[in-house]
Amino acid sequence: MTRSDSEAILGSRELARLPTDALREFRDRERAAYEAIKVRATPFNLARGKPATEQVALADQLLTAVTTSEECWAEDGTDCRNYYGSPQGLIETRRLFAPMLGAPPEQVLVANNSSLALMHDAVVYALLTGVRNGAAPWRDQYRPIRFLCPSPGYDRHFQVCEQYGIEMIPVALTGAGPDMNEVERLAADPAVKGMWCVPKYSNPTGETYSSETVARLARMRTADDFRLFWDNAYSVHHLTDTPDWLDNVLDACAAAGNPDRALVFGSTSKITFAQAGLGLFATSPTNMQWFVSRQSTRTIGPDKLNQLRHVRTLRDDAGIAAHMERQRRLLQPKFAAVTEVFAARLGGTGVATWTSPRGGYFISLDVLDGCAQRIVSLAKAAGIEVVPAGRTFPYGHDPHDRNIRIAPSFPPAREVRAAVDALATCILVASSERLLAQRGINA
Amino acid sequence: MTRSDSEAILGSRELARLPTDALREFRDRERAAYEAIKVRATPFNLARGKPATEQVALADQLLTAVTTSEECWAEDGTDCRNYYGSPQGLIETRRLFAPMLGAPPEQVLVANNSSLALMHDAVVYALLTGVRNGAAPWRDQYRPIRFLCPSPGYDRHFQVCEQYGIEMIPVALTGAGPDMNEVERLAADPAVKGMWCVPKYSNPTGETYSSETVARLARMRTADDFRLFWDNAYSVHHLTDTPDWLDNVLDACAAAGNPDRALVFGSTSKITFAQAGLGLFATSPTNMQWFVSRQSTRTIGPDKLNQLRHVRTLRDDAGIAAHMERQRRLLQPKFAAVTEVFAARLGGTGVATWTSPRGGYFISLDVLDGCAQRIVSLAKAAGIEVVPAGRTFPYGHDPHDRNIRIAPSFPPAREVRAAVDALATCILVASSERLLAQRGINA
Repeated sequence: MTRSDSEAILGSRELARLPTDALREFRDRERAAYEAIKVRATPFNLARGKPATEQVALADQLLTAVTTSEECWAEDGTDCRNYYGSPQGLIETRRLFAPMLGAPPEQVLVANNSSLALMHDAVVYALLTGVRNGAAPWRDQYRPIRFLCPSPGYDRHFQVCEQYGIEMIPVALTGAGPDMNEVERLAADPAVKGMWCVPKYSNPTGETYSSETVARLARMRTADDFRLFWDNAYSVHHLTDTPDWLDNVLDACAAAGNPDRALVFGSTSKITFAQAGLGLFATSPTNMQWFVSRQSTRTIGPDKLNQLRHVRTLRDDAGIAAHMERQRRLLQPKFAAVTEVFAARLGGTGVATWTSPRGGYFISLDVLDGCAQRIVSLAKAAGIEVVPAGRTFPYGHDPHDRNIRIAPSFPPAREVRAAVDALATCILVASSERLLAQRGINA
Repeated sequence: MTRSDSEAILGSRELARLPTDALREFRDRERAAYEAIKVRATPFNLARGKPATEQVALADQLLTAVTTSEECWAEDGTDCRNYYGSPQGLIETRRLFAPMLGAPPEQVLVANNSSLALMHDAVVYALLTGVRNGAAPWRDQYRPIRFLCPSPGYDRHFQVCEQYGIEMIPVALTGAGPDMNEVERLAADPAVKGMWCVPKYSNPTGETYSSETVARLARMRTADDFRLFWDNAYSVHHLTDTPDWLDNVLDACAAAGNPDRALVFGSTSKITFAQAGLGLFATSPTNMQWFVSRQSTRTIGPDKLNQLRHVRTLRDDAGIAAHMERQRRLLQPKFAAVTEVFAARLGGTGVATWTSPRGGYFISLDVLDGCAQRIVSLAKAAGIEVVPAGRTFPYGHDPHDRNIRIAPSFPPAREVRAAVDALATCILVASSERLLAQRGINA
């Protein structure tokens, strides 16, 4: 029996409502399909939010942007092959990224390749020296201190907390950002010192924080050394031609009388070269002084040559937008492949929901409760890598065992299609088994 | 009266032994010379251990080492424009620097541009998470913990301690490294957790630690989570053709039964491009695992393209040596200029001693006790920048107010000569004033 036959039999009916015999028959067909995939054992990787080779190649101009000694000089006369210049980075680079970050160049810092490192360092400086001159170090106030963690979220944010014993409190997402009633209630605890936010095309749910969410985050009652870690990693990473709108959090915090609340991060990792791009940071003037004073103890300053390369390749905000449009053309068909295959294979079955993101790098898939780990291990056994189930939650623990993050950017579209089709089979196997088990049938 | 007249009168006699009238006359002549320099007000900078433009230009091949997409691939097939690869850096880069660091490539990590950042991060990881899995964080054991600081030393090391409230204990240097009797006595204190060492061509004294010093550091009794911060910044930075010998500290520690004691740092900042080079780290396998696990929380990994550029430019250890020989040819005449001018102007006066370094970046000048700050401010008023007096000691406090660090690398040799000549005048003014004051003459 072919797949289309099977789908014809299934029709639009939900798996949970199939009679037991039909469900068992369905399961057996999907099991057979799964065994066939396993035999083929074609390796596919949907685990990593990694740009495709054609995407990084869009920025190959970086490789020839600075090739002579004459090209090594910044506009203020700094020789970028040598020490010194501002620890905030070159003024022309800060000017380039200022619109993207929503802050004037004086409030922008451009660092080496990793925005995660900037977030980590801000956490470390606050833990050990406090969030401003004279403030008590976070670590001396409460043990543990706490961070609010909208979940599912970015595992590497959570790992920073875990490394330093910061207790993580998960908060549900609503489609317009975190559940703000819950956030407001929790943030009033003076031991809550921070909150991780991926406010636009969130990793992995793809949602963008609404204006109301941003305003409430800006004005809510918190400890006076509470900080929003605003990881705006996907600010210009649209997948449609009607980009989502995100309010400027620095402006919102200033308007609410909390000008130092937000630390805004960004990166060119998914604009130019991943891991060979620039990490970006913007905040209030007071916070910038705080960060630079500590960062200047850590390092004399960032690699300025790579900053020059970026200025000469991207040029200005319009240049970034044009570049991201070229990225979109490469990425969008892969996201479309995922949602098309899911719709064809899983639509109407009632065993999975998935996001159709308007930007960012991920599709968030929710399966039947208790099935995510099983599906990921079925997939793995058949050669399909997705990120371990649970990884998108604090402590790697998805309380419902239902979320799976899909990253379709790296493989070619035809491979994405094949991989997601195989993953759908894993989902149908695990789900039908689960539903049968609920009826007492385990074989 | 010209300077040579003044020197003829002075002859070889010590200033302190001049009759008061002659000393006063000498002071007045030097004061007049100083006023003439001040009127000229030619700005000179001897403050920064900064390579000259011709020195960084020696590495211009870096600019064209990776210019096509085909050249972006590492030997293990990693696309260096994209994420991933080992968090320790490319194997070919680790192999390149392994001989310089004295460790096999498996025990080498190559990071972004700043070795200071690696030292800082190692301190932070130890403060917050302990020096090994399961060890108590330094910060939870004693408040404050302490570091031994051979002095004069590198101000940026001391600043890391100051930022995190680590108490610094200065230890005198002997010409063969720190006073080891004192070090052994102090290191037995369990609150002493670290020691800063610039073991070769030390900053600023230029001395290299003897084999006995290294052996005693390796075997001395310490807390079991004590670490040597071995900043071998000048390992290949010779100024003679008979390089100093430094024992391998990792081997010495292993032989003494303390295999995890040493953290070895290096950098290409003064080999290729300053601030656009590579930071280097080598240590025991256990320590490397410790460091990488924490560093992987901070960042996905270093910029690999800059690592490829270095491999293709420097090629191998012999390539590094050949490159450093070219650096030496540019640097050596500037160091010679300093010692020639000092010998001509200050020789026999008994008011100053200076080092004639066999490598590294600095000349260390000791003047009469209590005169360093005065000399630095005289120099500054005449347009000559040297690093603020005291900066080479913990907390910026030189107990004798006598040490001045001279960095002759950046200006052209003729400017170095003029600057040091002017500085000598400042020294003679301040010293003769001081000696007269000791005789009760202040005008």
